[in-house]
Amino acid sequence: MNKIIRIDMAELKVTTEKPPHDYQLLGGRGLSARILNAEVPAMVHPLGHENKLVVAPGLLAGTMAPSFGRISFGAKSPLTKTIKEANAGGTAAQKLDRLGIKAIIIQERPKENQAYIIYIDPKGAQIINAPDLSGKMNYDLVTTLQNRYGKDIGVISIGPAGEAKMTASTIAVTDQDGRPSRHAARGGLGAVMGSKGIKAIVINAKDTKSIEPLHKEKFKETVRDLIEILKQEKRSQSLSKFGTPSVIQFLSQLGSTPSWNYHGGPVKNIENIYGETISEVNQSRGGRMHGCMPGCLVQCSIVFNGEDGQHLTSALEYETLAMLGTNLGITSLDAVAQMDRMCDELGVDTIEVGSAIAQLMEAGVIEFGDDQKVIGILKELREGSPMGKIVGQGTAFTAQFLGLDRVPVSKGQAIPAHDPRACKAVGVTYCTSPMGADHTAGIDYRDSLSNEGQVKRSHDAQILSAAIDSLGYCFLAMPTKGQLMYEVLVKLLNARYGTDIKAEDVMNIGINTIKDELAFNHSAGWTDVHNILPEFLRMEKLPPHNEVFNIPRDEIDSIFNKSVIPKT
Amino acid sequence: MNKIIRIDMAELKVTTEKPPHDYQLLGGRGLSARILNAEVPAMVHPLGHENKLVVAPGLLAGTMAPSFGRISFGAKSPLTKTIKEANAGGTAAQKLDRLGIKAIIIQERPKENQAYIIYIDPKGAQIINAPDLSGKMNYDLVTTLQNRYGKDIGVISIGPAGEAKMTASTIAVTDQDGRPSRHAARGGLGAVMGSKGIKAIVINAKDTKSIEPLHKEKFKETVRDLIEILKQEKRSQSLSKFGTPSVIQFLSQLGSTPSWNYHGGPVKNIENIYGETISEVNQSRGGRMHGCMPGCLVQCSIVFNGEDGQHLTSALEYETLAMLGTNLGITSLDAVAQMDRMCDELGVDTIEVGSAIAQLMEAGVIEFGDDQKVIGILKELREGSPMGKIVGQGTAFTAQFLGLDRVPVSKGQAIPAHDPRACKAVGVTYCTSPMGADHTAGIDYRDSLSNEGQVKRSHDAQILSAAIDSLGYCFLAMPTKGQLMYEVLVKLLNARYGTDIKAEDVMNIGINTIKDELAFNHSAGWTDVHNILPEFLRMEKLPPHNEVFNIPRDEIDSIFNKSVIPKT
Repeated sequence: MNKIIRIDMAELKVTTEKPPHDYQLLGGRGLSARILNAEVPAMVHPLGHENKLVVAPGLLAGTMAPSFGRISFGAKSPLTKTIKEANAGGTAAQKLDRLGIKAIIIQERPKENQAYIIYIDPKGAQIINAPDLSGKMNYDLVTTLQNRYGKDIGVISIGPAGEAKMTASTIAVTDQDGRPSRHAARGGLGAVMGSKGIKAIVINAKDTKSIEPLHKEKFKETVRDLIEILKQEKRSQSLSKFGTPSVIQFLSQLGSTPSWNYHGGPVKNIENIYGETISEVNQSRGGRMHGCMPGCLVQCSIVFNGEDGQHLTSALEYETLAMLGTNLGITSLDAVAQMDRMCDELGVDTIEVGSAIAQLMEAGVIEFGDDQKVIGILKELREGSPMGKIVGQGTAFTAQFLGLDRVPVSKGQAIPAHDPRACKAVGVTYCTSPMGADHTAGIDYRDSLSNEGQVKRSHDAQILSAAIDSLGYCFLAMPTKGQLMYEVLVKLLNARYGTDIKAEDVMNIGINTIKDELAFNHSAGWTDVHNILPEFLRMEKLPPHNEVFNIPRDEIDSIFNKSVIPKT
Repeated sequence: MNKIIRIDMAELKVTTEKPPHDYQLLGGRGLSARILNAEVPAMVHPLGHENKLVVAPGLLAGTMAPSFGRISFGAKSPLTKTIKEANAGGTAAQKLDRLGIKAIIIQERPKENQAYIIYIDPKGAQIINAPDLSGKMNYDLVTTLQNRYGKDIGVISIGPAGEAKMTASTIAVTDQDGRPSRHAARGGLGAVMGSKGIKAIVINAKDTKSIEPLHKEKFKETVRDLIEILKQEKRSQSLSKFGTPSVIQFLSQLGSTPSWNYHGGPVKNIENIYGETISEVNQSRGGRMHGCMPGCLVQCSIVFNGEDGQHLTSALEYETLAMLGTNLGITSLDAVAQMDRMCDELGVDTIEVGSAIAQLMEAGVIEFGDDQKVIGILKELREGSPMGKIVGQGTAFTAQFLGLDRVPVSKGQAIPAHDPRACKAVGVTYCTSPMGADHTAGIDYRDSLSNEGQVKRSHDAQILSAAIDSLGYCFLAMPTKGQLMYEVLVKLLNARYGTDIKAEDVMNIGINTIKDELAFNHSAGWTDVHNILPEFLRMEKLPPHNEVFNIPRDEIDSIFNKSVIPKT
């Protein structure tokens, strides 16, 4: 990790920079926040020439340590108008680290409205004009690139939604099967990549090797310890068997899984999408579980086959089954799997688009439960009809179009499939995270219906999330005890980089990341005033526990006072 | 003006309140700001049940004083998400004042999704269920109401756009001819009225009389002085002859009249829409000038006839001729007049919708200069097609839909037909006014290309505008010297109300209004960070003077430090 690649799309020029020394222990989300703060004026238009897209693998991505292969994308978000980071698994992070690349900074916009790819191999990076790739869906795009550059490439790409600068668009990353199934989905970062004219980044790291840590034995030993810890964790065991849908039964009974556009209440035949059912159906069709990243132990990603026994979609996740399923009154597994594939092809966030479609249902444009109409809307998104393009702009936009005021968003972003009335700590995160409504920014289900201690839980989870997002670790592979995680992380960092830091320094990576992000947001006009969830979450009681989100506002606003924002 | 009428649309209940004594010299915009600050939480959704719509005539509306008949509408705006006031002429303010009504506060929303009217006469106010009126265009609506309640009523109404809660929707007020041609157009307040389920407010003040001031002779004398002042003003003379289009020749040569979506440069046959040409054409067709308000001396409103000699539209204003004309590359007088009528019928802001259509042209969806396609889009707005409804949501929304980042808005609102690069003082107003991009909030063309003294000019103009908007005076009838205006206002207020205030107290009405508005906006998350115009206005040189908007940011941010925000 000894270089930063800078891509100037106005000059069509690539330069290489040596990162400053104080970037040594900055990677992923933390590095992205630091660079954006230094280089992007906070009030720029997110699709304007002054915004930049930062691509940064985690700090241990190229090593043999498992579950560290996540890659971060950062920019000012066209959806939230805040700083934003979204990360994904797949193989790109490992390849970039093995090529010695700490970050790619993409700036400016091409003078001509054309499609380009960035091709990176051990010799360096090139910008290649690729008009023939324009408009391609993600799977076809990746196949074309694999035919052109070899099966072993890693691909970071946008679908037609990113090209059309839709604010629900994603950045896709190929998984271990070479499929564009892993998405940095939140915040519309695909539109930023689209505004830069980049259809794909192709990474060819064919003859590179695993990164050797400075202290090999110590590293190996810690990896072994981590593996032991994960083997003991019930959550990991359950994820390995059933993937993220393993939680549907519990969360839907708690009320946390949204249904009927967050009105709540039972959805008929919900057992069709329980983790156990999916596993059974999928096995009978020859589907399987896999690790989205090289070396992952948890292997929670579902490679799902259709009725014909052929591959239908990969990474059929809980959030998708809830936001395109239960929240729309839909429990047809095959229909949701088909929608998931369509979203991956288009390059749109299943949470944002699912919630936007719930708004159409709320307004009566289509009926709750009508899965074929939902598939129709996604087809329209492909065809670029006005209605399809509206949904591609996300939930708040669709609600405004429809004149609705019950809008499940925070800081402009759709609330994911953890209802803050049933999981109060994640509600605090939705209010206060610099990322807006993002469950991966800090979630904790302990005592989740109570108001007690949730601000502290959110605080700790946010800092741990920011730390692991900077290290490229997968939050699904986290031990239940956060402190254990910090201890593993510090050992791995010291062993790889020869540093001598302590667990609290790793915590500080998280703290400093949030500090940088809040600083950017402050300059972009965000204040504590915005730490608020939509009225319906504060007023409408959620079945079955009849809870509202009612953590006192002063507690929420004080969340970072002690750690991130020191009292002066 | 001894009562406030409160309409609760959830309970369908009308109550009458005695205004507190300190409201005595508060009317129009100032009263609206005070009430909204006291009663509406700043972070509410503008279309939610907690927002309120305040209707408040100016303080002298029911007297014989000329040009004081404006009426203010205030709410949290669904377009800007700030506090907003928009005012209009017409006859409603005079009638309300003569009925003793200082303000109407409309709160909550009906439980059933139905259309209602508010009927007000000397006996009081009633809420009347009127499902048959739903969906009606403004002219047809008003005719229906006149047939039902008599020719002499004043009508405040929304068109189909307000009913559909479009954020470019207006509130219409009938003029002296009984036509819904005067619009409180900015900020989408029609959508707030629509969210309350109110299609129209009908005011029957048939047997009421002109308000007698406490000191009649003093009042008459001051009115005579004001008339003398206005007769001397060149601007009034020109407005009387040619209306607001009298400025097109001068402003287009200065570059201030936008053309080609603010890219600037000459538009062919622009002389077709010069004030002199319009007057000539209109006279030959039997059209005329009229005063939109009772007793107006300036009479700048154009009652425009079509080629067939029949009435086509009233109030064909400069802003409309620029935003639906030159800025779209269109100079066909009859086409723009037809668009103006369509916008009045639909109840949409010609500035906001015009600028939204310019975005469609920028994106190549329709061609610059194609007036028939523009008329087609307005027809689609009527029919409720997705594209029509997108345009009805205004400029920023349309730009996002199209993936464009060169967006001529400030605080979410379309910049009107005074380019801030050619009129720097109005640029400062667009940045700093609590109203966002609103030329009526403070405009001054003195030395308009220079950077010197523009912050002071904007400051003074904003305070004077806030004062006259609170008194219901028309800013087109203002003497060039602001101080003269304050002197007239104080004499009229003292004569009407028997008070003993000074000119500086009238200025304080303006200062306190802006103070209240900024306080609301602060609580709604607006900070100095937002005092910024879009990049293109700061970077792209505007022909013919090749100016950009480059008033230093610290000067802009300090605008209210001395007056509105006292240093502590």
